[in-house]
Amino acid sequence: MPIIEMHLMTGRTEEQKCNAAKAVTDALVSSLGVKRESVRILITEHGEHDFFVSGMTMKERSQAQQAAQQPLNAEGK
Amino acid sequence: MPIIEMHLMTGRTEEQKCNAAKAVTDALVSSLGVKRESVRILITEHGEHDFFVSGMTMKERSQAQQAAQQPLNAEGK
Amino acid sequence: MPIIEMHLMTGRTEEQKCNAAKAVTDALVSSLGVKRESVRILITEHGEHDFFVSGMTMKERSQAQQAAQQPLNAEGK
Amino acid sequence: MPIIEMHLMTGRTEEQKCNAAKAVTDALVSSLGVKRESVRILITEHGEHDFFVSGMTMKERSQAQQAAQQPLNAEGK
Amino acid sequence: MPIIEMHLMTGRTEEQKCNAAKAVTDALVSSLGVKRESVRILITEHGEHDFFVSGMTMKERSQAQQAAQQPLNAEGK
Amino acid sequence: MPIIEMHLMTGRTEEQKCNAAKAVTDALVSSLGVKRESVRILITEHGEHDFFVSGMTMKERSQAQQAAQQPLNAEGK
Repeated sequence: MPIIEMHLMTGRTEEQKCNAAKAVTDALVSSLGVKRESVRILITEHGEHDFFVSGMTMKERSQAQQAAQQPLNAEGK
Repeated sequence: MPIIEMHLMTGRTEEQKCNAAKAVTDALVSSLGVKRESVRILITEHGEHDFFVSGMTMKERSQAQQAAQQPLNAEGK
Repeated sequence: MPIIEMHLMTGRTEEQKCNAAKAVTDALVSSLGVKRESVRILITEHGEHDFFVSGMTMKERSQAQQAAQQPLNAEGK
Repeated sequence: MPIIEMHLMTGRTEEQKCNAAKAVTDALVSSLGVKRESVRILITEHGEHDFFVSGMTMKERSQAQQAAQQPLNAEGK
Repeated sequence: MPIIEMHLMTGRTEEQKCNAAKAVTDALVSSLGVKRESVRILITEHGEHDFFVSGMTMKERSQAQQAAQQPLNAEGK
Repeated sequence: MPIIEMHLMTGRTEEQKCNAAKAVTDALVSSLGVKRESVRILITEHGEHDFFVSGMTMKERSQAQQAAQQPLNAEGK
């Protein structure tokens, strides 16, 4: 321990994932005083249709947010 | 929170997963009184050889259950 | 399957957790067409210092949000 | 229950995963006295860039270990 | 790896959990050929109101099953 | 996302857990370029008899390691 399960959206490069794993490992070593060797990180990636906030995919959600702002912008004119 | 990890067999369409996520979000909002915005759902899909009950895949298991019923049916004749 | 891991803040009654489990089970049966018997739900509760958004507990976060609104309110006078 | 989430590196054959699931199911039935039918196993596989120890992939780590041994071997000559 | 998350009902003794962990470790070493040292097992225990099948706790479920059998037994008299 | 499940041995103070959550959040924001607000961290703590390496608790393991070194030390005299 610590054992870290990291859930990410798909689409990061191998380099980005390596950088994230290194940064999180550093963060745990310095904040908890654990041995570097004891830190294990597992990444699981989730596609667009495997992650939902408010019951919406990220795409649906940003469309809903844009739609909600449209009338406001229109009024602002 | 709530944060929901949903493990499913592979093979559902994007629409089915969206429907499931919406239905589960509705269920949590109405049963727990949480804000819709606070519900996060993560789907992980597992292939045929990544899920086991009684140490058998679903296919092996339904074959075992059919085999177990065969003599019974035979007797029933 | 489906197997559902549900992460909640501590503090719900047994009745609330039962209601949530029943509602989520209903939601999955009707949206995915799975057998009721196949739905398994595991609840894990997390205390105040075991859940963080933006690196803050819910308490710190609502204090930060109130602090951010104070000057705005003051200006509003 | 028991419900077992098994995280493996990618690359095992279907047969190896079936054997592992059977062996773990046997182990739980005999050690905990649970019904075989109640044991569920979920396998999640992680690629080379999705698992890190000491902030390194397995490949980086074995290279680091070889590099660390080189001077030692050189000295040993 | 392998990293194993084991979900159990509360109520096992420390000895039972140690025995289960040893048995599962043995099972993985012999079936996958992994190094004993690489096997990590994390146990999470769930109370009666934190595990549901068919939307019911184990207690509710065994009561429901007994109730379903009662008429059958009555008929059998 | 990212959603981070962090498994720790029991025994950290609330302050240590807050520090770790802040450090990991910083690490993800700077390495992945995600919004601070999107980072969620869930801590689950595991007691001495809920974490095993090589089928041994940390206590059994350090005792085994000491025992393995004893003859070596004795020889060294």
